[in-house]
Amino acid sequence: MRKIGPRNLLTADALKSKKVSETYTLMTELVLPNDTNTLGNLMGGKLLHWMDIASAISAQRATNRTVVTVAVDFVEFKASIPLGSVVIIEARVTRTFNSSLEVRIDVAYENLQTGERKDSNTAYYTFVAVDQSGRPIPVTDVQPESEQELAWHTEAQRRRELRLLLAGRIKPGEATGLREMFGI
Amino acid sequence: MRKIGPRNLLTADALKSKKVSETYTLMTELVLPNDTNTLGNLMGGKLLHWMDIASAISAQRATNRTVVTVAVDFVEFKASIPLGSVVIIEARVTRTFNSSLEVRIDVAYENLQTGERKDSNTAYYTFVAVDQSGRPIPVTDVQPESEQELAWHTEAQRRRELRLLLAGRIKPGEATGLREMFGI
Amino acid sequence: MRKIGPRNLLTADALKSKKVSETYTLMTELVLPNDTNTLGNLMGGKLLHWMDIASAISAQRATNRTVVTVAVDFVEFKASIPLGSVVIIEARVTRTFNSSLEVRIDVAYENLQTGERKDSNTAYYTFVAVDQSGRPIPVTDVQPESEQELAWHTEAQRRRELRLLLAGRIKPGEATGLREMFGI
Amino acid sequence: MRKIGPRNLLTADALKSKKVSETYTLMTELVLPNDTNTLGNLMGGKLLHWMDIASAISAQRATNRTVVTVAVDFVEFKASIPLGSVVIIEARVTRTFNSSLEVRIDVAYENLQTGERKDSNTAYYTFVAVDQSGRPIPVTDVQPESEQELAWHTEAQRRRELRLLLAGRIKPGEATGLREMFGI
Amino acid sequence: MRKIGPRNLLTADALKSKKVSETYTLMTELVLPNDTNTLGNLMGGKLLHWMDIASAISAQRATNRTVVTVAVDFVEFKASIPLGSVVIIEARVTRTFNSSLEVRIDVAYENLQTGERKDSNTAYYTFVAVDQSGRPIPVTDVQPESEQELAWHTEAQRRRELRLLLAGRIKPGEATGLREMFGI
Amino acid sequence: MRKIGPRNLLTADALKSKKVSETYTLMTELVLPNDTNTLGNLMGGKLLHWMDIASAISAQRATNRTVVTVAVDFVEFKASIPLGSVVIIEARVTRTFNSSLEVRIDVAYENLQTGERKDSNTAYYTFVAVDQSGRPIPVTDVQPESEQELAWHTEAQRRRELRLLLAGRIKPGEATGLREMFGI
Repeated sequence: MRKIGPRNLLTADALKSKKVSETYTLMTELVLPNDTNTLGNLMGGKLLHWMDIASAISAQRATNRTVVTVAVDFVEFKASIPLGSVVIIEARVTRTFNSSLEVRIDVAYENLQTGERKDSNTAYYTFVAVDQSGRPIPVTDVQPESEQELAWHTEAQRRRELRLLLAGRIKPGEATGLREMFGI
Repeated sequence: MRKIGPRNLLTADALKSKKVSETYTLMTELVLPNDTNTLGNLMGGKLLHWMDIASAISAQRATNRTVVTVAVDFVEFKASIPLGSVVIIEARVTRTFNSSLEVRIDVAYENLQTGERKDSNTAYYTFVAVDQSGRPIPVTDVQPESEQELAWHTEAQRRRELRLLLAGRIKPGEATGLREMFGI
Repeated sequence: MRKIGPRNLLTADALKSKKVSETYTLMTELVLPNDTNTLGNLMGGKLLHWMDIASAISAQRATNRTVVTVAVDFVEFKASIPLGSVVIIEARVTRTFNSSLEVRIDVAYENLQTGERKDSNTAYYTFVAVDQSGRPIPVTDVQPESEQELAWHTEAQRRRELRLLLAGRIKPGEATGLREMFGI
Repeated sequence: MRKIGPRNLLTADALKSKKVSETYTLMTELVLPNDTNTLGNLMGGKLLHWMDIASAISAQRATNRTVVTVAVDFVEFKASIPLGSVVIIEARVTRTFNSSLEVRIDVAYENLQTGERKDSNTAYYTFVAVDQSGRPIPVTDVQPESEQELAWHTEAQRRRELRLLLAGRIKPGEATGLREMFGI
Repeated sequence: MRKIGPRNLLTADALKSKKVSETYTLMTELVLPNDTNTLGNLMGGKLLHWMDIASAISAQRATNRTVVTVAVDFVEFKASIPLGSVVIIEARVTRTFNSSLEVRIDVAYENLQTGERKDSNTAYYTFVAVDQSGRPIPVTDVQPESEQELAWHTEAQRRRELRLLLAGRIKPGEATGLREMFGI
Repeated sequence: MRKIGPRNLLTADALKSKKVSETYTLMTELVLPNDTNTLGNLMGGKLLHWMDIASAISAQRATNRTVVTVAVDFVEFKASIPLGSVVIIEARVTRTFNSSLEVRIDVAYENLQTGERKDSNTAYYTFVAVDQSGRPIPVTDVQPESEQELAWHTEAQRRRELRLLLAGRIKPGEATGLREMFGI
C-alpha cells in the first residue's frame, strides 16, 4: 500500500483552485541581434517561443503540473519590434476545460531611449496538463475575479468551440457560441 | 529619373508569379537537450520558432521580398516529439492576397533508432511582403498545380475570412465562405 | 547652432527624475539543461548574466540612456536552483552618483510542481550612463518613496565608499560611512 | 536466455540494407548574425557544425544506429555566404566499410532577394556505428542505384585508402587505388 | 563494508594539495554579435558568465570536486571590449578556506587587426566544493610559489573577512585584517 | 594621394613576420548538455566549430588580417569526450603560402573529477587572408623556431600538395613531395 506522504499532499494542493491573478506571469526580454530579421526587427518565431515559455509557466502556476502546448491560435503581430527593444510578455490562464487550459498572452515593447511603451499583440495558447507518463489529467478551473477576467473566462468557451470546429472535432451545429456570433 | 538597372530587373523578377512547388521548403532539425521540457519532449515554442523560419523562407521564395510574420493560426500539436528525434518541417505558400501570403506547414518526426516516421502537426502562418522601409508591397499570386495545391488555394480564402472576422476587420455577414460552412 | 528637435526633447525627458518604482524590472526565466552544472543546478555564471540584463534594463528605465556595467559586488549565492525551476529576478535603481547608478537585484526561484517560492540571493550592480561615443554623462537621481527604498538609498552611499576604497580611489580616512560602521 | 522482442526485430531491421536514396537528408538553415565573421559572411566553423548534423542524420538513416564522427576530409570552402542567405545542405551515405560509413555532403546557398542559388562546397565525413556502450558494430553496405551513386561508391574506396595512408594505418604499397591514380 | 577501489583513490588524490600554477586556466573567446550591447561592445553579463566558467574550471583543477559559485566581488569593468575582439581570461585559485576557494580572474582583450592587447579587469569569485548530494566538503589549501602568488594568498584573508563582514557573518571587531587597513 | 597614417602603419605591421609561437592560441571549453549526442558525448560538429574559432584566431594573430576558412583536412576523432569534460584546443600557424595559411590544431580533454588529461585529435585547417572586400592578399611566412615547428613547416608543403592534388588543381606529376612518399 502506498503511504500518505508529501506526494499526496502535492496532489491535493494541485487540485486546489487558483485565482486567475495567481497564474499571472510577467517576462521581460531584450531583443538581441540573433533575434532579428534582415530589417533589424524581432523575428516572429522568437516571439512565439518566448510566448510559449511565459504561457507554459502561467499554466503550471495554475495546475502545479507539467503542461504541454497543444494549440496556438489567433496570434496577430501588428508591430515591428526593433533590435534593442525590451519585450514585455504577460500571461494568465483564462479558463480550464477538463485537462486543458487556455492562456491569454499580451505583448508590449518598450524603447529604452525614450521610455515609450507600445502594445504589440495578443494571443491564446492552449495547454494540456499531463502526468509523468505524459497522459492528460483533469485540472480544476481557475477563478476569475475582475470584470476583465470574467469576460475572458466567458469568451474562452467560444474560442474553444472555434478550435474544436476547425479541428473537425465538433460539427457546426454544436458550436452554439459561434452560431450566436453569426446571429443564427 | 531612375535608371534601368539590376534593381529594376529584380523587381520585375519579384513580380513574376511562382508555382507553389517553387516555394517548397524542407527543414530538418535534431531535437537537442535545450529544446526539451521536463518530460524530455520538444517544447512547443521551439517548434513554433522553427516553423516560422521554414515558412518565412517559403514566403521569400515566392516573392523575393523581405517578409514579416503577421498571423499564426490553427496550430495543433498532436504528438510528443522526444529528445534525439529528427524533426522534418515542410512549408509551401498556398495563396497570396494583395501583400499577404498564407504558408501551410506540415511537421513530421522520425525515430532514428527505428526509422519510423510519424506526422506531428499542420499549421498556417501568414506573412506580409514589405519593402526596405517595412511598408507592405503587393505580391503576385502563386500558381497551384496539383489537385492538393488547388484545394489548399481554395480553402485559403475561408481561413482568411476567419482571420479577418476574428480580428474584427470584417463582419459576420461578409464572411461568405464561413456562412456556407455553417449552411446559412 | 543645433536646432530644437525631438533629440533635445528626449534629453529633457532623460534628465527628468524618475521614481524608484518606475525603474522596477521583473524578469522570469526557466532553467534549461544548458544552464546547469553536473549536479543539475543553475550555474552561477548564467544567473550573473540574467541579473546583468535585468539590472541594465532597470538602469535604462531610470535614465533613458545607454548604460554599461562598471562594477559587480556583494553577490552571494545561498541556494541551489534546480533544472526546471522558474527564476524570478527583480531589479530597481537605488541611487545615482553623477553618471553612475547602483541597481539592487533580488532573485527568487519557484518550483512549478509545488508552487513553492524561495529567496535565492541579492546583489548590487553599478552602471554608468554613456552617450553615443561611450562617454559618461550625468544623470538625475532617482526618488525613493517607500521606507525600504529610502533605506536602500541611504545605504548606497556606504556601498559606494566601500567600492571606491577597495578600488583604491579614496583613502580609508575619507570613507566616513564605513568608519561609522566600525565605530571609529 | 534473452527473449525475442522488439529489440531484436530492430536489430534485424538495422541490418537490412538501405538504398543510398533512403539515406538522403536535406537541411535548410538561415544565416543569422551570430553565425557570421567580421565581413558579415558565414563562419566556416558554423557550416562544419551544420554539415556534421546533416551527415550524422544521413548515417543514422542508413544504419538505425547511433553514429559518431571519426574523420572529416576534403572540405573546401569556395564561396563566401552572406548574412541572411539560406544554406541548403544535402547529405547521403556513399558506402560503408565494416562499421564505418562515408557521407558525402553538398552545400549550396540561396539569395532570397534574387532567388539565385549557387554551389558552395562538397565534403566527406566518416562515421562509425556504435552500440549503447560506444563500441563499433558492423553495418550493412548501402545500395547505389544511379550512375552518380555508383561513381561515389567506387571512389569511396580510394578516399578511404588515402585516409588510412595519411593516418599511418596502411603503407603506400597497400594503397592500390592511389597507386593507380599516380600511374605506378 | 565499502571496498578499497578507484573511488577511494580518487578521494586520496583530491585531498593532495595542488600548486597554484596547477590550477591555472586560460580561456580565449571571440566577441560575437549576440554578446554585444547597442554600442557594439561586449555586455558585462556575458563576461561575468565566461569568468564564472573559467574560474569554476580552475577551482575544480584545485580540488577534483564539483564546485558551486557562492560569491562574486570586487568586479570592476574599466574597458569597453568591441565586437570582434578576442577576450583572454586567466583564472587561478589564490587560497582555500575549509570547503571554500577564492579564484582570481584577470581579463584582457586583443584587437586582431592591430595585435594590440589591453588589460580589461580583475575579479574574485568564491566557490564551495561539494559532494554528489551538494553538501560542502573540506578541501586542502593550494600552495603559492611565486612572490605574486604569495601576495594573493595573504590578501585573500582580508577579502574573506570583508565578505563575511558584509554578509553579517562576523562583527567588525573580528575583522582584524580590515581593522589594520583602517589603522585602528 | 593617400596620406601616411595609422592605417598604413598597420599594414606595415601586418607584413612583419611573426614567430610560430606568437600565433599560439589556447582555448578552453566546457562540454554542456547541448553539445552532446545521445550517448552523452561531445558531437563532432561542435568540436569542428570550436577548432575553427581557435585556428582563425591563430591565423589572425599571424597576419593581423581578416581570414576565412578555405579547407579542412585530416581531422580524425579518436576519443569520445563525455559531458562535463574540459576541452583544451591549441592552435598555431605552421606555414603560409602566398595568401593562405595552414593552422595545426591539437585537442585534448580533461576529466575534472580525476584530473586526468588525454589527447583527443589533431587537425589542419587552411585559411586565406583577405582585405575588406574579401579579396585574398599576400601574407608573410611565419618563422618556425623549435625543431617541432620546423618539422611542421616542412610537412606543410606535402599536405598542401595533397590538398591541391585532391582538388584537381595540380597533376600527380607535380606533387613531388607526395611522389617521394610513394618512393617513385
